[in-house]
Amino acid sequence: MNIDSTVALRPHVTWDRDARGALSGVRVLDLSRFIAGPLCAQNLGDLGADVIKVESPGGEDARANSPAINGKALYTMMYNRNKRAVTLNSRSPEGRELLRRLAGWADVIVENFRPGTLDKMGIGYETLREINPRLIVVSISGYGQGGPYRDRVLFDCIAQAMSGVMDMNAGPDGMPRLMKMFPADTLGATQATSATLAALFHRERTGEGQVIDIAVLDSLVAALGTALPANLLFDATPEHNGNRDDFNAPANAFPVRDGFVYLHAGTAAFWSRFCIEILDRPDLVTDERFSSTPARMSNVTELEKLVTDWTMDHTGLEVEQIFERVGIPCSRVADVATAARNEQLWSRDMLFRTHDSDGDELFLVGYPAKFSGSPITMRFAPPRVGEHTEEVLEEILGLDGAEIAQLRDSGVL
Amino acid sequence: MNIDSTVALRPHVTWDRDARGALSGVRVLDLSRFIAGPLCAQNLGDLGADVIKVESPGGEDARANSPAINGKALYTMMYNRNKRAVTLNSRSPEGRELLRRLAGWADVIVENFRPGTLDKMGIGYETLREINPRLIVVSISGYGQGGPYRDRVLFDCIAQAMSGVMDMNAGPDGMPRLMKMFPADTLGATQATSATLAALFHRERTGEGQVIDIAVLDSLVAALGTALPANLLFDATPEHNGNRDDFNAPANAFPVRDGFVYLHAGTAAFWSRFCIEILDRPDLVTDERFSSTPARMSNVTELEKLVTDWTMDHTGLEVEQIFERVGIPCSRVADVATAARNEQLWSRDMLFRTHDSDGDELFLVGYPAKFSGSPITMRFAPPRVGEHTEEVLEEILGLDGAEIAQLRDSGVL
Repeated sequence: MNIDSTVALRPHVTWDRDARGALSGVRVLDLSRFIAGPLCAQNLGDLGADVIKVESPGGEDARANSPAINGKALYTMMYNRNKRAVTLNSRSPEGRELLRRLAGWADVIVENFRPGTLDKMGIGYETLREINPRLIVVSISGYGQGGPYRDRVLFDCIAQAMSGVMDMNAGPDGMPRLMKMFPADTLGATQATSATLAALFHRERTGEGQVIDIAVLDSLVAALGTALPANLLFDATPEHNGNRDDFNAPANAFPVRDGFVYLHAGTAAFWSRFCIEILDRPDLVTDERFSSTPARMSNVTELEKLVTDWTMDHTGLEVEQIFERVGIPCSRVADVATAARNEQLWSRDMLFRTHDSDGDELFLVGYPAKFSGSPITMRFAPPRVGEHTEEVLEEILGLDGAEIAQLRDSGVL
Repeated sequence: MNIDSTVALRPHVTWDRDARGALSGVRVLDLSRFIAGPLCAQNLGDLGADVIKVESPGGEDARANSPAINGKALYTMMYNRNKRAVTLNSRSPEGRELLRRLAGWADVIVENFRPGTLDKMGIGYETLREINPRLIVVSISGYGQGGPYRDRVLFDCIAQAMSGVMDMNAGPDGMPRLMKMFPADTLGATQATSATLAALFHRERTGEGQVIDIAVLDSLVAALGTALPANLLFDATPEHNGNRDDFNAPANAFPVRDGFVYLHAGTAAFWSRFCIEILDRPDLVTDERFSSTPARMSNVTELEKLVTDWTMDHTGLEVEQIFERVGIPCSRVADVATAARNEQLWSRDMLFRTHDSDGDELFLVGYPAKFSGSPITMRFAPPRVGEHTEEVLEEILGLDGAEIAQLRDSGVL
């Protein structure tokens, strides 16, 4: 492992199952797989909720994803901390009965099966509401619980293709471009977290549960800003101008000796500072080719050449430091190795070092909101498949050791 | 305007200021500008909160952004519905006094000034807490309220450069790639909404307010999945393989007669269906070049040529329909015009037609969570600068017409 002093000097995060947060006492049953559902449930767990993750006896499929730490997929570790893991076979009658009893215990159920699956499993919302009228069911799906595409299968890449964002991201060659960060799944998870919290607040005031329908595709579309409405209103289409800002110049990724920097000196104030304090060329501020935003956009090729002539003489770090001093937004275009060692991120616990429940070393990503009054909790390391089955069945459903052993022998757990 | 029947047949959404949602009665003071803060406050408004947007007398800078509808920026319309708009000059003593009184009224303040600005304005959290111990202050900033980069300026593009995501998105040429959807700002807004709701829930139970610190950079980093931890653990680096999936094949953007489709037939089940039901080539299922995921990844170039030979003979719509029938994830790579007319999105109100407060036609983007018990509200069209100044100062602060006229004459409003 190649980690610098920023990383090495930070303390390891230890798991404290007694830590309390905003959602302490809230009970979440997580029936979901992959990213959108598990991350939503993990967020609720980070906020303090008691989250029970239910998997089939072999564990969810994503546990086989690479890369892995001693056979344990990093992928599932990323989305399943602060949960207790239970296995049960929901195709067996005994498994279904256990599931119904856990649903009766829960305040919130998070699921991302294909629409209609909960009904087929005998725990559709109408059934659950009779058991527990205060229950909040959070259903996350590709296209949503309604509409003509309801029954289609969606992956993040498909949402990117359908939403128009691959077109928005296309470069001058017109080739559509996929983003490698699973934006639809992640936005879906974040929207689902927010919606669950709104429903919990509503329930706190009214006593009423409800069902929430979140589509991963919708969550991505809601994050695309003006692009789709601007097309409907003005027939506006994407600029396809690569890394260049659509409205201001200079604002682009510029080459430096050792890679690229992104700098945004496109506003009047930034441009003026750049010319005077960095280039020592006050004449450029009043040069009619560059003296206004429309002028700079009209002469952008010439302008960018002028900037490039300067950046090419510097390293990325030099440019970043010079721009920081002058107060113009800039960053090296960091490769993931550099980003993973960024001192700002480490100082805010956005990356942290810890261990899993076997004691294996692990790096995880922090929660992006910092609360003064109800801090984020780190209570349970990402669990092994079924790590807490006995504990949960005893504590929550009141089963004894003999009953659990029998269920295990008959393949229900 | 070029809109098809899907769009034309949908009813216009009308604004109903009496609609009630999960957050009805919650009072939000929105001091923010651009995207991250305004969208957070708009989300709270969509959920039913009473949101007062405060701007300087000329309106926030983003109101000058293009494109515009009769001089009104679409950009600010996207992020400011369900708010009442008030102007006040926070540099004047009278303006500051009005601001302090509005802060006393609020349950939640959303701001995205540079760190330390609220203190300079005389409404830092310590001061506000004395006026109102139940207050929740949501501070959104580029790098956060702490850490070595606290005082730097951040734009979305800079967050993309620093987080490593431009490297993750780089294609085979290694050139870093900017995403044109402002992912950091939008994720920051969504995280801030969620955090505000968690704090409201905590307050409902404990009576205590608090301050929340959200960095736009952190919000993007939290959405990057395994990339940064995998680098720290395994020195893993991005594949730089264009639109190709990193783990499964075939999963890529493939050319069709009229553009591209994205299809993901990379799992064992999808691959088998693709060979048997679409290509009519059952032999390929057992062909040792393609019979397992590692085999398909090793022979991906050959595999993709085989898929391309088939896709090139079809239109995008044909491929999408064939794959839908067979149950394999697929979508045309939609340009924004096609995406903006997608029937699934329209059926779920993710795009809707309405009018602004002048009666000008407008298209907006819907809220991605659908609540059965506490529906999203559409109460106020995106407001003109200061549209509700008189109403708010009378209703909330009890000022009379003469006092308001005097404040206006002296340039405070």
